[in-house]
Amino acid sequence: MGKSRFEAFSDGVIAIIITIMVLEMKVPHGESLQALRPLIPVFLSYTLSFVYLGIYWNNHHHMLHTVHKVTGPMLWANLHLLFWLSLVPFATGWMGENHFSSMPSALYGVVLLMAAIAYYILQQLIIASQGPGSLLKKAVGGDWKGRASPFFYAIAIPMAFWSQWVSLGLYVAVALIWLVPDRRIEHVLASQEA
Amino acid sequence: MGKSRFEAFSDGVIAIIITIMVLEMKVPHGESLQALRPLIPVFLSYTLSFVYLGIYWNNHHHMLHTVHKVTGPMLWANLHLLFWLSLVPFATGWMGENHFSSMPSALYGVVLLMAAIAYYILQQLIIASQGPGSLLKKAVGGDWKGRASPFFYAIAIPMAFWSQWVSLGLYVAVALIWLVPDRRIEHVLASQEA
Amino acid sequence: MGKSRFEAFSDGVIAIIITIMVLEMKVPHGESLQALRPLIPVFLSYTLSFVYLGIYWNNHHHMLHTVHKVTGPMLWANLHLLFWLSLVPFATGWMGENHFSSMPSALYGVVLLMAAIAYYILQQLIIASQGPGSLLKKAVGGDWKGRASPFFYAIAIPMAFWSQWVSLGLYVAVALIWLVPDRRIEHVLASQEA
Amino acid sequence: MGKSRFEAFSDGVIAIIITIMVLEMKVPHGESLQALRPLIPVFLSYTLSFVYLGIYWNNHHHMLHTVHKVTGPMLWANLHLLFWLSLVPFATGWMGENHFSSMPSALYGVVLLMAAIAYYILQQLIIASQGPGSLLKKAVGGDWKGRASPFFYAIAIPMAFWSQWVSLGLYVAVALIWLVPDRRIEHVLASQEA
Repeated sequence: MGKSRFEAFSDGVIAIIITIMVLEMKVPHGESLQALRPLIPVFLSYTLSFVYLGIYWNNHHHMLHTVHKVTGPMLWANLHLLFWLSLVPFATGWMGENHFSSMPSALYGVVLLMAAIAYYILQQLIIASQGPGSLLKKAVGGDWKGRASPFFYAIAIPMAFWSQWVSLGLYVAVALIWLVPDRRIEHVLASQEA
Repeated sequence: MGKSRFEAFSDGVIAIIITIMVLEMKVPHGESLQALRPLIPVFLSYTLSFVYLGIYWNNHHHMLHTVHKVTGPMLWANLHLLFWLSLVPFATGWMGENHFSSMPSALYGVVLLMAAIAYYILQQLIIASQGPGSLLKKAVGGDWKGRASPFFYAIAIPMAFWSQWVSLGLYVAVALIWLVPDRRIEHVLASQEA
Repeated sequence: MGKSRFEAFSDGVIAIIITIMVLEMKVPHGESLQALRPLIPVFLSYTLSFVYLGIYWNNHHHMLHTVHKVTGPMLWANLHLLFWLSLVPFATGWMGENHFSSMPSALYGVVLLMAAIAYYILQQLIIASQGPGSLLKKAVGGDWKGRASPFFYAIAIPMAFWSQWVSLGLYVAVALIWLVPDRRIEHVLASQEA
Repeated sequence: MGKSRFEAFSDGVIAIIITIMVLEMKVPHGESLQALRPLIPVFLSYTLSFVYLGIYWNNHHHMLHTVHKVTGPMLWANLHLLFWLSLVPFATGWMGENHFSSMPSALYGVVLLMAAIAYYILQQLIIASQGPGSLLKKAVGGDWKGRASPFFYAIAIPMAFWSQWVSLGLYVAVALIWLVPDRRIEHVLASQEA
């Protein structure tokens, strides 16, 4: 399978997820500023998820740079990742509409955790397909971000029942950690070319 | 007609179908885990349809690998396939919202059957256009999956009125059969290159 | 402006329009076949519009085959066409939900007429940009379909107030006329290459 | 990062935003012309936003013509722009549903202002990356449109509380100013090639 169609399909799905998420922010009926107030948590959760999907798109893109041939298992691992990402709008909407209450905040973490695991599986499949001298393995060698993220989510999920603000703080912290694009892969690619 | 625009359009439509389907999973009003309970069948039917659309995208992609020139009839056969696939979110939502009751489960099978027939028509058109030494014909020579699927759907549709769980079992079974990507075409293509 | 991004954007918008249109077919609450009955006109109008958008995508694609350089005015003429096409889901939904009553059937014709005019403007701009030996002009020389369609719509719109079935018959007739892909452009292109 | 995937993702998101915006124009229940009357402001605001998104797509496209290498900061500046553009359907729907009353008309201006600022940041990042002889800097040298637009929005926002028609007039005026595609970049590119 050609990489370009694989990339284009992933991009398409992520672009649609990121955009339809805004549909959860329903146009209010009143015309006053007050009418917007209940939407503040919805807007904040939308912003957080927008950043997360941007991070996924960005890292997905960098990871695929190291791939030359897409195999069947990679394709299904990728669809598995897209499946969990497709649940982000639902989890975001539920969390926002309920003003970050415990259960929705925990579910949001579950979806993030499952997406992180799906991403990890895809990454491992690519590394395995590249054999011993795997470019991607070299790039994510000291992948502390990739290893720390699921750990943070796993803490944040039960935390939501004690204080959802701690959970939210963890979700925001992980997003901030990732906001810096994954320069490791860029570096390895650059050194490869040199 | 160039193949790339044909592929891009099909990918776009399938990516949108797979993504808007999640909009049928409406954000519940309550914030408890109980509020999610009525969504379980909706979630399960969403998962099943996500896998089906992934299978269609995958097989569609493999099939087009053997195509060099897109003709007018192929284009309309492809739109016909996309038409039935575009009804999957509706059938999925109806089946999920009614907790897999008989009529919606039967309709789901009808949509799957029509999509399978549309796929078969497209496949036959491509084979016909390739003449006697058709690469695709060779690839799908012993196409027992392609032949068995409509047969399973045709059994599952009336079965839904006797026991919808048998129908659902058949839908899941067909999906599992197809989950393995269509290696036949890959093999023929590979042997062609060798 | 490169033609490929112009094509990709047009394809993207048409693919989204054709797919979100199905969202107007709301999942019914009942689980019986009776619950689907009110959806029959919605389904029929969806089918008609799906065919129309397929025709537009197809003809748009053929027309762009003759274009080498996209100019600013072409870009806006194209956005003008996409604007009217983007109103097709609304007109389709209104017509379907009101069981093809007069006013919605007339409005459907208005949207088709405006889209046809927008298409004509785009076509004329492309012909003008190609100068005296315009390939597109040669291709659509005896363009009776393109000339007849707006005429049919213009008749169908007032007819809707006398009998909407005549209007609908005209809409279906025009769609059938166009279902045959525009071989004229293919022929001129083919003879050009020969 | 390759420019093509960057462009394709931006195009995808803008194409989806421009298209889902029409979903805010809900199909009315009545079948008379009267039933459409409340939709007139929604339709007008939709038209205005469609033109604005067309302008952004067009200018974004021209700007990227001068870019050869997409950097991490550009990517995030671009996602920041897409974020504000993704709020256009919400602001449009709120303004249209409330018949252009003051607060929604002001919020519409805020979203336009934020998008304009995000566009400006992206532009400055690209100029900075191109170094002293920046092609884009040369192109937007006397960028009075880019400088005037945020100024107009900043006036229009408070004006909405005095008379929303003045605000709307300003929004329409800015759109008209931009409707002419950005020939400056085309000129510089053309002179570059000459």
